[in-house]
Amino acid sequence: MNKLIYIALASVLTAMAVPASAQFAKAEDAIKYRQSALFVMGQHFGRLAAMAQGKIPHDPKAAADSAAVVENMSRLPWAAFGEGTDQGGNTKAKPEVWSDNAKFKDAAEKMMAEVAKLNTAAKTGKLDDLKVAVGATGGTCKNCHDNFRNK
Amino acid sequence: MNKLIYIALASVLTAMAVPASAQFAKAEDAIKYRQSALFVMGQHFGRLAAMAQGKIPHDPKAAADSAAVVENMSRLPWAAFGEGTDQGGNTKAKPEVWSDNAKFKDAAEKMMAEVAKLNTAAKTGKLDDLKVAVGATGGTCKNCHDNFRNK
Repeated sequence: MNKLIYIALASVLTAMAVPASAQFAKAEDAIKYRQSALFVMGQHFGRLAAMAQGKIPHDPKAAADSAAVVENMSRLPWAAFGEGTDQGGNTKAKPEVWSDNAKFKDAAEKMMAEVAKLNTAAKTGKLDDLKVAVGATGGTCKNCHDNFRNK
Repeated sequence: MNKLIYIALASVLTAMAVPASAQFAKAEDAIKYRQSALFVMGQHFGRLAAMAQGKIPHDPKAAADSAAVVENMSRLPWAAFGEGTDQGGNTKAKPEVWSDNAKFKDAAEKMMAEVAKLNTAAKTGKLDDLKVAVGATGGTCKNCHDNFRNK
Protein backbone atom coordinates (compact mmCIF):
# COMPACT_ATOMS: atom_id res chain seq x y z
CA MET A 1 0.00 0.00 0.00
CA ASN A 2 1.46 3.37 -0.80
CA LYS A 3 2.28 6.01 1.76
CA LEU A 4 -0.42 8.47 0.71
CA ILE A 5 -3.15 5.90 1.21
CA TYR A 6 -1.78 5.12 4.66
CA ILE A 7 -1.83 8.80 5.57
CA ALA A 8 -5.41 9.11 4.32
CA LEU A 9 -6.32 5.98 6.22
CA ALA A 10 -4.78 7.22 9.44
CA SER A 11 -7.02 10.28 9.41
CA VAL A 12 -10.10 8.11 8.97
CA LEU A 13 -9.04 5.75 11.72
CA THR A 14 -8.43 8.54 14.19
CA ALA A 15 -12.13 9.33 13.90
CA MET A 16 -12.97 5.68 14.48
CA ALA A 17 -11.20 5.01 17.76
CA VAL A 18 -9.16 2.03 16.60
CA PRO A 19 -8.64 -0.75 19.08
CA ALA A 20 -4.87 -0.80 19.57
CA SER A 21 -4.37 -4.31 20.89
CA ALA A 22 -7.60 -5.58 22.43
CA GLN A 23 -10.98 -5.98 20.79
CA PHE A 24 -12.03 -2.66 22.24
CA ALA A 25 -9.69 0.24 22.94
CA LYS A 26 -11.62 1.26 26.05
CA ALA A 27 -14.68 0.33 28.11
CA GLU A 28 -16.69 3.17 26.58
CA ASP A 29 -16.17 1.69 23.11
CA ALA A 30 -17.34 -1.74 24.25
CA ILE A 31 -20.42 -0.19 25.87
CA LYS A 32 -21.22 1.90 22.82
CA TYR A 33 -20.67 -1.12 20.59
CA ARG A 34 -23.06 -3.42 22.45
CA GLN A 35 -25.65 -0.65 22.75
CA SER A 36 -25.31 0.08 19.03
CA ALA A 37 -25.75 -3.56 18.04
CA LEU A 38 -28.76 -3.94 20.34
CA PHE A 39 -30.30 -0.68 19.08
CA VAL A 40 -30.06 -1.77 15.44
CA MET A 41 -31.46 -5.17 16.42
CA GLY A 42 -34.29 -3.53 18.38
CA GLN A 43 -35.27 -1.32 15.47
CA HIS A 44 -35.60 -4.29 13.13
CA PHE A 45 -37.30 -6.45 15.74
CA GLY A 46 -39.70 -3.58 16.34
CA ARG A 47 -40.72 -3.67 12.68
CA LEU A 48 -41.39 -7.41 12.88
CA ALA A 49 -43.39 -6.97 16.09
CA ALA A 50 -45.39 -4.15 14.52
CA MET A 51 -46.28 -6.50 11.64
CA ALA A 52 -47.14 -9.31 14.05
CA GLN A 53 -49.40 -6.96 15.99
CA GLY A 54 -51.06 -5.55 12.88
CA LYS A 55 -49.73 -2.05 13.50
CA ILE A 56 -48.13 -1.97 10.07
CA PRO A 57 -48.97 -4.12 7.04
CA HIS A 58 -47.26 -7.50 6.78
CA ASP A 59 -44.59 -7.12 4.12
CA PRO A 60 -42.96 -10.54 3.67
CA LYS A 61 -39.85 -9.19 1.91
CA ALA A 62 -39.28 -6.46 4.52
CA ALA A 63 -39.91 -9.01 7.27
CA ALA A 64 -37.34 -11.43 5.85
CA ASP A 65 -34.82 -8.61 5.48
CA SER A 66 -35.36 -7.37 9.04
CA ALA A 67 -35.21 -10.87 10.50
CA ALA A 68 -31.87 -11.44 8.76
CA VAL A 69 -30.52 -8.23 10.30
CA VAL A 70 -31.86 -9.26 13.71
CA GLU A 71 -30.05 -12.59 13.43
CA ASN A 72 -26.79 -10.97 12.33
CA MET A 73 -26.96 -8.42 15.13
CA SER A 74 -27.92 -10.97 17.79
CA ARG A 75 -24.43 -12.47 17.67
CA LEU A 76 -22.52 -9.25 18.26
CA PRO A 77 -23.22 -7.73 21.69
CA TRP A 78 -21.85 -10.50 23.89
CA ALA A 79 -18.14 -10.04 23.17
CA ALA A 80 -18.56 -6.46 24.39
CA PHE A 81 -19.59 -7.47 27.91
CA GLY A 82 -16.03 -8.27 28.97
CA GLU A 83 -14.46 -7.66 32.34
CA GLY A 84 -14.07 -3.97 33.13
CA THR A 85 -17.03 -2.90 30.98
CA ASP A 86 -19.49 -2.80 33.88
CA GLN A 87 -18.86 0.92 34.33
CA GLY A 88 -18.54 3.74 31.84
CA GLY A 89 -20.53 5.41 29.12
CA ASN A 90 -24.21 5.34 29.92
CA THR A 91 -24.44 1.62 30.52
CA LYS A 92 -27.65 0.22 31.97
CA ALA A 93 -26.13 -3.22 32.49
CA LYS A 94 -26.75 -4.58 35.99
CA PRO A 95 -23.82 -6.00 38.03
CA GLU A 96 -25.48 -9.42 37.62
CA VAL A 97 -24.18 -9.56 34.03
CA TRP A 98 -20.79 -10.27 35.60
CA SER A 99 -21.71 -11.69 39.03
CA ASP A 100 -24.14 -14.20 37.50
CA ASN A 101 -22.44 -14.52 34.15
CA ALA A 102 -23.52 -18.11 33.47
CA LYS A 103 -27.16 -17.06 33.72
CA PHE A 104 -26.49 -14.05 31.49
CA LYS A 105 -24.84 -16.23 28.86
CA ASP A 106 -27.74 -18.65 29.05
CA ALA A 107 -30.18 -15.76 28.47
CA ALA A 108 -28.11 -14.61 25.49
CA GLU A 109 -28.09 -18.11 24.02
CA LYS A 110 -31.82 -18.49 24.44
CA MET A 111 -32.35 -15.22 22.61
CA MET A 112 -30.06 -16.25 19.77
CA ALA A 113 -31.86 -19.59 19.47
CA GLU A 114 -35.26 -17.88 19.19
CA VAL A 115 -33.88 -15.32 16.77
CA ALA A 116 -32.66 -18.11 14.50
CA LYS A 117 -36.22 -19.51 14.52
CA LEU A 118 -37.55 -16.01 13.88
CA ASN A 119 -35.37 -15.73 10.80
CA THR A 120 -36.70 -19.05 9.51
CA ALA A 121 -40.28 -18.04 10.30
CA ALA A 122 -39.96 -14.68 8.55
CA LYS A 123 -38.73 -16.42 5.41
CA THR A 124 -41.90 -18.55 5.14
CA GLY A 125 -43.83 -15.39 4.31
CA LYS A 126 -46.66 -16.54 6.61
CA LEU A 127 -47.89 -13.97 9.10
CA ASP A 128 -48.99 -16.66 11.57
CA ASP A 129 -45.46 -18.10 11.67
CA LEU A 130 -44.08 -14.62 12.21
CA LYS A 131 -46.49 -13.96 15.09
CA VAL A 132 -45.44 -17.10 16.96
CA ALA A 133 -41.73 -16.39 16.49
CA VAL A 134 -42.04 -12.72 17.43
CA GLY A 135 -43.81 -13.72 20.64
CA ALA A 136 -41.17 -16.28 21.55
CA THR A 137 -38.30 -13.94 20.72
CA GLY A 138 -39.88 -11.05 22.60
CA GLY A 139 -40.07 -13.26 25.67
CA THR A 140 -36.31 -13.79 25.58
CA CYS A 141 -35.71 -10.03 25.17
CA LYS A 142 -37.89 -9.33 28.19
CA ASN A 143 -36.26 -12.06 30.27
CA CYS A 144 -32.80 -10.61 29.74
CA HIS A 145 -33.92 -6.99 30.23
CA ASP A 146 -35.75 -7.87 33.46
CA ASN A 147 -32.75 -9.63 34.94
CA PHE A 148 -29.76 -7.81 33.54
CA ARG A 149 -30.71 -4.28 32.53
CA ASN A 150 -31.63 -1.29 34.66
CA LYS A 151 -34.61 0.78 33.57
CA MET B 1 -50.12 -15.84 20.56
CA ASN B 2 -51.58 -15.74 24.01
CA LYS B 3 -52.46 -12.58 25.86
CA LEU B 4 -49.73 -12.89 28.48
CA ILE B 5 -47.01 -13.06 25.87
CA TYR B 6 -48.43 -9.97 24.19
CA ILE B 7 -48.38 -8.10 27.49
CA ALA B 8 -44.80 -9.20 28.10
CA LEU B 9 -43.90 -8.19 24.56
CA ALA B 10 -45.50 -4.77 24.92
CA SER B 11 -43.25 -3.97 27.87
CA VAL B 12 -40.16 -4.95 25.89
CA LEU B 13 -41.24 -2.95 22.89
CA THR B 14 -41.88 0.17 24.93
CA ALA B 15 -38.18 0.11 25.75
CA MET B 16 -37.35 -0.28 22.08
CA ALA B 17 -39.19 2.66 20.54
CA VAL B 18 -41.15 0.70 17.96
CA PRO B 19 -41.68 2.35 14.63
CA ALA B 20 -45.46 2.73 14.38
CA SER B 21 -45.87 3.05 10.64
CA ALA B 22 -42.64 4.25 9.04
CA GLN B 23 -39.25 2.62 9.09
CA PHE B 24 -38.25 4.93 11.91
CA ALA B 25 -40.61 6.38 14.50
CA LYS B 26 -38.72 9.66 14.62
CA ALA B 27 -35.67 11.41 13.17
CA GLU B 28 -33.67 10.74 16.34
CA ASP B 29 -34.15 7.00 15.87
CA ALA B 30 -32.96 7.17 12.27
CA ILE B 31 -29.91 9.19 13.33
CA LYS B 32 -29.09 6.83 16.20
CA TYR B 33 -29.60 3.85 13.89
CA ARG B 34 -27.21 5.03 11.19
CA GLN B 35 -24.64 6.11 13.80
CA SER B 36 -24.96 2.72 15.51
CA ALA B 37 -24.48 0.79 12.29
CA LEU B 38 -21.48 2.92 11.31
CA PHE B 39 -19.96 2.62 14.80
CA VAL B 40 -20.17 -1.18 14.75
CA MET B 41 -18.74 -1.16 11.23
CA GLY B 42 -15.95 1.20 12.29
CA GLN B 43 -14.96 -0.98 15.23
CA HIS B 44 -14.58 -4.04 13.01
CA PHE B 45 -12.87 -2.11 10.23
CA GLY B 46 -10.52 -0.72 12.86
CA ARG B 47 -9.47 -4.27 13.78
CA LEU B 48 -8.76 -5.08 10.14
CA ALA B 49 -6.80 -1.87 9.69
CA ALA B 50 -4.81 -2.58 12.85
CA MET B 51 -3.87 -5.98 11.40
CA ALA B 52 -3.00 -4.43 8.03
CA GLN B 53 -0.78 -1.89 9.78
CA GLY B 54 0.89 -4.49 12.00
CA LYS B 55 -0.47 -2.95 15.19
CA ILE B 56 -2.05 -6.25 16.19
CA PRO B 57 -1.17 -9.75 14.97
CA HIS B 58 -2.83 -10.92 11.78
CA ASP B 59 -5.49 -13.42 12.85
CA PRO B 60 -7.09 -14.78 9.66
CA LYS B 61 -10.20 -16.13 11.44
CA ALA B 62 -10.82 -12.88 13.32
CA ALA B 63 -10.17 -10.94 10.12
CA ALA B 64 -12.71 -12.98 8.17
CA ASP B 65 -15.27 -12.58 10.97
CA SER B 66 -14.75 -8.83 11.18
CA ALA B 67 -14.89 -8.38 7.41
CA ALA B 68 -18.21 -10.24 7.33
CA VAL B 69 -19.61 -7.89 9.97
CA VAL B 70 -18.27 -4.89 8.05
CA GLU B 71 -20.05 -6.09 4.91
CA ASN B 72 -23.32 -6.73 6.75
CA MET B 73 -23.20 -3.33 8.43
CA SER B 74 -22.23 -1.48 5.25
CA ARG B 75 -25.71 -2.03 3.81
CA LEU B 76 -27.65 -0.60 6.73
CA PRO B 77 -27.00 3.12 7.25
CA TRP B 78 -28.36 4.45 3.97
CA ALA B 79 -32.07 3.85 4.59
CA ALA B 80 -31.70 6.01 7.70
CA PHE B 81 -30.67 9.13 5.77
CA GLY B 82 -34.25 9.89 4.70
CA GLU B 83 -35.83 13.30 4.33
CA GLY B 84 -36.26 15.05 7.66
CA THR B 85 -33.30 13.30 9.29
CA ASP B 86 -30.86 16.15 8.62
CA GLN B 87 -31.52 17.61 12.07
CA GLY B 88 -31.87 15.98 15.46
CA GLY B 89 -29.87 13.83 17.83
CA ASN B 90 -26.19 14.63 17.57
CA THR B 91 -25.93 14.18 13.83
CA LYS B 92 -22.71 15.20 12.11
CA ALA B 93 -24.20 14.76 8.66
CA LYS B 94 -23.59 17.75 6.40
CA PRO B 95 -26.51 19.29 4.45
CA GLU B 96 -24.81 17.98 1.29
CA VAL B 97 -26.10 14.48 2.12
CA TRP B 98 -29.49 15.75 0.97
CA SER B 99 -28.57 18.67 -1.32
CA ASP B 100 -26.11 16.55 -3.30
CA ASN B 101 -27.78 13.22 -2.72
CA ALA B 102 -26.65 11.59 -5.96
CA LYS B 103 -23.02 12.16 -4.99
CA PHE B 104 -23.72 10.83 -1.50
CA LYS B 105 -25.34 7.68 -2.88
CA ASP B 106 -22.41 7.22 -5.22
CA ALA B 107 -20.00 7.49 -2.28
CA ALA B 108 -22.06 4.92 -0.36
CA GLU B 109 -22.04 2.54 -3.32
CA LYS B 110 -18.30 2.88 -3.78
CA MET B 111 -17.80 2.04 -0.12
CA MET B 112 -20.05 -1.02 -0.36
CA ALA B 113 -18.20 -2.20 -3.47
CA GLU B 114 -14.82 -1.95 -1.73
CA VAL B 115 -16.21 -3.61 1.40
CA ALA B 116 -17.38 -6.56 -0.68
CA LYS B 117 -13.81 -6.89 -2.00
CA LEU B 118 -12.50 -6.53 1.56
CA ASN B 119 -14.67 -9.43 2.66
CA THR B 120 -13.30 -11.57 -0.17
CA ALA B 121 -9.74 -10.50 0.60
CA ALA B 122 -10.07 -11.27 4.32
CA LYS B 123 -11.26 -14.78 3.50
CA THR B 124 -8.08 -15.57 1.55
CA GLY B 125 -6.17 -15.50 4.83
CA LYS B 126 -3.35 -13.58 3.11
CA LEU B 127 -2.17 -10.47 4.91
CA ASP B 128 -1.05 -8.82 1.66
CA ASP B 129 -4.57 -9.15 0.23
CA LEU B 130 -6.00 -7.68 3.42
CA LYS B 131 -3.61 -4.71 3.28
CA VAL B 132 -4.64 -3.80 -0.27
CA ALA B 133 -8.35 -4.09 0.50
CA VAL B 134 -8.09 -2.17 3.79
CA GLY B 135 -6.33 0.67 1.96
CA ALA B 136 -8.96 0.82 -0.78
CA THR B 137 -11.85 0.62 1.68
CA GLY B 138 -10.31 3.23 3.95
CA GLY B 139 -10.11 5.59 0.99
CA THR B 140 -13.87 5.32 0.46
CA CYS B 141 -14.51 5.94 4.19
CA LYS B 142 -12.36 9.05 4.05
CA ASN B 143 -13.96 10.30 0.85
CA CYS B 144 -17.44 10.15 2.35
CA HIS B 145 -16.36 11.61 5.72
CA ASP B 146 -14.56 14.49 4.01
CA ASN B 147 -17.54 15.42 1.87
CA PHE B 148 -20.54 14.53 3.98
CA ARG B 149 -19.60 14.53 7.66
CA ASN B 150 -18.74 17.41 9.96
CA LYS B 151 -15.76 16.96 12.27
